[in-house]
Amino acid sequence: MKVKHLFFLILLFLPFINIQANQHPGLFLTSKGVRDIKASLGKYPQFDKSYNDLKAIADQALSEKMEVPVPKDGGGGYTHEKHKNNYYQMNAAGTMYQLTGNEKYAQFVKDMLMKYAQMYPTLGLHPLVKSEVRGKLFWQTLNDAVWLVHTANAYDCVYNFIDEKDRTFIEKNLFYPMVEFITNGNPSNYATFNKMHNHGTWSTSAVGMIGYAMGNKEMVAKALYGSNKDGKSGFIKQLDVLFSPDGYFTEGPYYQRYSIWPFMTFAQVIQNQQPELNIFQYRDGILQKSVNSVLQCAYNGEFFFLNDALLKTYDTQEIVYAVDIAYKNNPADKQLLDIARQQGSFIVSDEGLATAKAVYQEKIQPFDFKSILLHDGSKGDEGGIGILRTGTENKQTCLTFKGTSHGLSHGHYDKLSIVLYDNGNTILPDYGAVRFLNIEPKSGGNYTKENSTWGMQTIAHNTVTVDNRSDFNGEFKVSGKYHSDINYFESKNPQVQVISGEERNAYPGVVLNRTTALITAKGFEYPVTLDLFKVKSDSVHQLDLPFYYYGQMVMTDIKYQKNTKELKTLGSNNGYQHLWLEATGKTNKSNASFTWVNGNRFYSITTIANENTQFMMTRIGAGDPDFNLRNDPCFMIRQPNVSNHTFVSVIEPHGLYDLSREVTTNFDTNIASVELIRDDESYSVVKLETKNNQSFLFITVNRDFGDSKDRKVLINGKSISFIGNYYFSAYNKLK
Amino acid sequence: MKVKHLFFLILLFLPFINIQANQHPGLFLTSKGVRDIKASLGKYPQFDKSYNDLKAIADQALSEKMEVPVPKDGGGGYTHEKHKNNYYQMNAAGTMYQLTGNEKYAQFVKDMLMKYAQMYPTLGLHPLVKSEVRGKLFWQTLNDAVWLVHTANAYDCVYNFIDEKDRTFIEKNLFYPMVEFITNGNPSNYATFNKMHNHGTWSTSAVGMIGYAMGNKEMVAKALYGSNKDGKSGFIKQLDVLFSPDGYFTEGPYYQRYSIWPFMTFAQVIQNQQPELNIFQYRDGILQKSVNSVLQCAYNGEFFFLNDALLKTYDTQEIVYAVDIAYKNNPADKQLLDIARQQGSFIVSDEGLATAKAVYQEKIQPFDFKSILLHDGSKGDEGGIGILRTGTENKQTCLTFKGTSHGLSHGHYDKLSIVLYDNGNTILPDYGAVRFLNIEPKSGGNYTKENSTWGMQTIAHNTVTVDNRSDFNGEFKVSGKYHSDINYFESKNPQVQVISGEERNAYPGVVLNRTTALITAKGFEYPVTLDLFKVKSDSVHQLDLPFYYYGQMVMTDIKYQKNTKELKTLGSNNGYQHLWLEATGKTNKSNASFTWVNGNRFYSITTIANENTQFMMTRIGAGDPDFNLRNDPCFMIRQPNVSNHTFVSVIEPHGLYDLSREVTTNFDTNIASVELIRDDESYSVVKLETKNNQSFLFITVNRDFGDSKDRKVLINGKSISFIGNYYFSAYNKLK
Repeated sequence: MKVKHLFFLILLFLPFINIQANQHPGLFLTSKGVRDIKASLGKYPQFDKSYNDLKAIADQALSEKMEVPVPKDGGGGYTHEKHKNNYYQMNAAGTMYQLTGNEKYAQFVKDMLMKYAQMYPTLGLHPLVKSEVRGKLFWQTLNDAVWLVHTANAYDCVYNFIDEKDRTFIEKNLFYPMVEFITNGNPSNYATFNKMHNHGTWSTSAVGMIGYAMGNKEMVAKALYGSNKDGKSGFIKQLDVLFSPDGYFTEGPYYQRYSIWPFMTFAQVIQNQQPELNIFQYRDGILQKSVNSVLQCAYNGEFFFLNDALLKTYDTQEIVYAVDIAYKNNPADKQLLDIARQQGSFIVSDEGLATAKAVYQEKIQPFDFKSILLHDGSKGDEGGIGILRTGTENKQTCLTFKGTSHGLSHGHYDKLSIVLYDNGNTILPDYGAVRFLNIEPKSGGNYTKENSTWGMQTIAHNTVTVDNRSDFNGEFKVSGKYHSDINYFESKNPQVQVISGEERNAYPGVVLNRTTALITAKGFEYPVTLDLFKVKSDSVHQLDLPFYYYGQMVMTDIKYQKNTKELKTLGSNNGYQHLWLEATGKTNKSNASFTWVNGNRFYSITTIANENTQFMMTRIGAGDPDFNLRNDPCFMIRQPNVSNHTFVSVIEPHGLYDLSREVTTNFDTNIASVELIRDDESYSVVKLETKNNQSFLFITVNRDFGDSKDRKVLINGKSISFIGNYYFSAYNKLK
Repeated sequence: MKVKHLFFLILLFLPFINIQANQHPGLFLTSKGVRDIKASLGKYPQFDKSYNDLKAIADQALSEKMEVPVPKDGGGGYTHEKHKNNYYQMNAAGTMYQLTGNEKYAQFVKDMLMKYAQMYPTLGLHPLVKSEVRGKLFWQTLNDAVWLVHTANAYDCVYNFIDEKDRTFIEKNLFYPMVEFITNGNPSNYATFNKMHNHGTWSTSAVGMIGYAMGNKEMVAKALYGSNKDGKSGFIKQLDVLFSPDGYFTEGPYYQRYSIWPFMTFAQVIQNQQPELNIFQYRDGILQKSVNSVLQCAYNGEFFFLNDALLKTYDTQEIVYAVDIAYKNNPADKQLLDIARQQGSFIVSDEGLATAKAVYQEKIQPFDFKSILLHDGSKGDEGGIGILRTGTENKQTCLTFKGTSHGLSHGHYDKLSIVLYDNGNTILPDYGAVRFLNIEPKSGGNYTKENSTWGMQTIAHNTVTVDNRSDFNGEFKVSGKYHSDINYFESKNPQVQVISGEERNAYPGVVLNRTTALITAKGFEYPVTLDLFKVKSDSVHQLDLPFYYYGQMVMTDIKYQKNTKELKTLGSNNGYQHLWLEATGKTNKSNASFTWVNGNRFYSITTIANENTQFMMTRIGAGDPDFNLRNDPCFMIRQPNVSNHTFVSVIEPHGLYDLSREVTTNFDTNIASVELIRDDESYSVVKLETKNNQSFLFITVNRDFGDSKDRKVLINGKSISFIGNYYFSAYNKLK
């Protein structure tokens, strides 16, 4: 906070940007970096490999016919991929010019820039109308900005090689008009440039980087402080607004991963060009926190699917950039080296070299994937995402609990949803986005229409849907105003970790309250998840709680009828039109269990039921005319006609299924019974009994939260005292 | 052949079996082996690991409460898994007694055998009625035999430790009655013991091994030469009948993998006990050939799905046994060491030690996964399976073509079906078996009913189904009489490899003829498959040619309507009741293409169409009340009302889809056109044109096959001459 205030003082009294101009390279790669890299070659095999990989890209570029086609195609199409490849090639060749001194690389960059400079003034908006923010080189301005981030770096590398006349030609015909376009052209671009959104970060970084490269203070000022240079928008404001104090990025990990690239790259450029801004210390080191928090949002190297998300691992180049730059600027963080070692590749730059060197010379600390609550909101007061973990490395059990704000335009309508990972596999998934990135025949590589009609809808997630509708009726403007609250988050005791959250606005007159515990206890082979989803209302509703699962159904004690000759959809809108109803069932017992197998382990959900409870087995894939959806199965619990209801479910991994050795153990659930023995405004109390004769009591506080408060709960006439928000114990101790 | 005749002479004149009795251990582990293993510990880390793994099993066994429960459960159930685990534990403890000299291990084996001996006389048939061949310890006698194979080895190891009185008790109450049961008890057991089937091999091996262990010549004679000791059945006859001269096992690779275990284990025991039988040289070394041929039936370490099959890799213990024993008995075969190295584990025995030592000391030759035709039938004249491969290691393209006999009770009704692997992935799969091995709630771990109604049916495979029926009307007794024929198999030219086969009996009055080529040619990024499926008949039929694919549909130029609100089945029997009809389409062009993405590569099928061709996109999963089926998609071509028709399709891998680096290239097929320019009794001629301006001509001979025959084909008034069965060339060369 202190740093922040100081910084704004400096800003107000310093209208001029102090740029280290005429120093080339000096944008991302520095002269010192060039010397160090040359001297280090042959010492760090993985760095050498990255160097050789980059050189191979540059050499390949020089061997090909140079093409700068008139823009035409969408993501994955020819011109799209060509322009993308061109900036990678320029970046590689520019870097290789600096590192080898061979002018053929510089000549390549210059020739290509000249071609772009010749073509650019002739371009109108991109012919493909797929986005409100159409670009010129690409179908959306975003990609034009990405192009410029990479090209600015290439330009800096060959700046001194190009004579002044050609530089002027390039700047006048390409970079100036491109900056004008990104900041003002196409009315929406102005808004995007000044927007608090990952697209805004790419825009400001692009403009700032080419501004530094050309020594243009005006551009840099706009990049840092917004179009009006008043600090109300721009890169610095993005650092204030887009991250919570914990470093959580409000759009979710998929876009945090994507925007971390310009955030860290541009920050490094600022550090090189204006070290007095101390950008990496800004807001208590928010960029460092951001890198760490995005890494925490991964299981087995794969980022969580939260909001719009596709499969991404932390081996991607953007995370290589993030980790190397973060380490260079905070070499005390030895855990980053663990990630860098796993990535096995490095930026060919000062930062990559520093990180590679440390991986070889320093003591690497294992990255601590831990239980953590990442608060959302620029002030950290807009709910958050809770991550509960137990066990080690890739065999961890990991549960995520979403109680955040909406997450801007990429947010999904799933308040209080959970996702479960175990044994290296995804057990209860989040569908993620419906998109085939860069596959042009699939909606031009953009989100398909099913992303709105399915991916974003509440029913697509492991949380309660009320009355067949989505949270906030699926209205972005309404959802954007609210956030869930985290009631409490407890991870001190690794045996019993609990998160509880509440959502009061998703449905008028309905309060949703979910408490989920990850419990390691005698009698269970693996950690079990105890999940209480409490719905309170004055009026009557239908509640659906789906559990999407990966794997093959094994058995259930529910009496069900499967539709074997004809399938119909579960509903007609709000995502229900995308679900085939495969089977329906009831039970006459007070518990129902459903078992499936995933990897070499069995999983059972045991849930409390009554005579009104309806069970449904559904499968995604209806209402999908273009084959855009996956066909994941789901076990869904429906409670019709209730005003107050609490779903209580235990998700239990058990047994072993080893097809190779042909060994099976414990295919059946170990839960003998689940009982909700008290459930009111103050407390919910669950009793669990196992088939191997263990019994447990779990109590959660439902209001007046506080981890040092004294509690006294009356159960069956006996009083239980505890301090804090929850209680868990073997039940026989009560007797 | 020479060895075989000689052997039978010996047999006829030698009514007595010459057993190396009183030598314990001497069955599988030998005294020399024990000395060698002791001396080698610490020298070969992977062998040490296998030793320690086995010791851990033995130590774990000793630390547990010993349980020999009354049999009750099916596969995967408690008593089933317990009895299975018991034989593994006895085997481990017996071996460890020999290798450590510590009597606690021997005591364990003895105690457990005593328990079995006490219980066995009290047992009736297993209470679960799931098999015609019910066992006593297990639900099927097969597993009783497997139990005895392992236990015989354990008994041999502790033979001298147990005093004679207890040995007599064990033999009298357990082994003798068990042998009696396996050979005669439960009327079906006699048939199985004398059957040419993998169950027969387990039975003869079990009886033979315990016979050798107890020094009982009668048992050994029956095991080797059948119940009547006349050589008309028994282990030796199985070697004659179950393998083709190439070593192909008629049930297919899944059961070859399973039966190779008793085949090789019992053979090693025979070698140790009666070296004069030269068992590993029998029938020109059929056992060695069998090991090599089963290894050839794998892609990326996974065995082909042919007939009843589940996923199995060659890391399984049975293949470890096969490879180690094969290597010990033929140390010239250095390619086996490549597999052993990949397996990374060894039998703790003479054979395992010899192999481990060689892996460390000898020059390993890469196992040559090559194009090969494995003939079926004991004389090698009942068709076969063709395997075409190109490229290296795990990126090979591999096509399998099934033209075999039925494959006994585990055979499927899919004559002339193909499967395609590429880029490390399965592209066009074979469904395999519908079974959840060892998962008791799933039909007791046995085949589910959908295995017959779906898995075995013709429509479940990538081949033509005529008139909505299955080959041979799905009648095993009929299908078992016939086999397809391989017309020709050409793999000399790695650029153009071709297999052609014919089936004349699957449908009365219909001849099926398929010719499939794997072609590497200029203009294509990767090898393409050219597939001609020619159907000839005097009457009119409906023909369905499905291509099951793994991956996500990307695009098609077919005009199709997808069923988005309701799904119905494609038919009501012969497997059609298990297919949901997702979409139907037509084209008004002469070619239709269908593209999907799998892994990081795109795949297109381009097929010749006319105005009558119907296209269907289906998905497995209908008619499945118990959630037993997967939900794989399929692209199906239907030609109604034809008497003579040739399906011509090109299956083309293309482009790159790298989601991590966000790079896409060539998502569209490169095929501009496919034309069938001549198609008659003698020749079929296909012309291919690519979008990058290549054109090719492919000719296959349809009769009078012969690879040195001169051919002259008239095409568009021009004559093409070639020698052999096929012709492939760039088309412009013709002009």
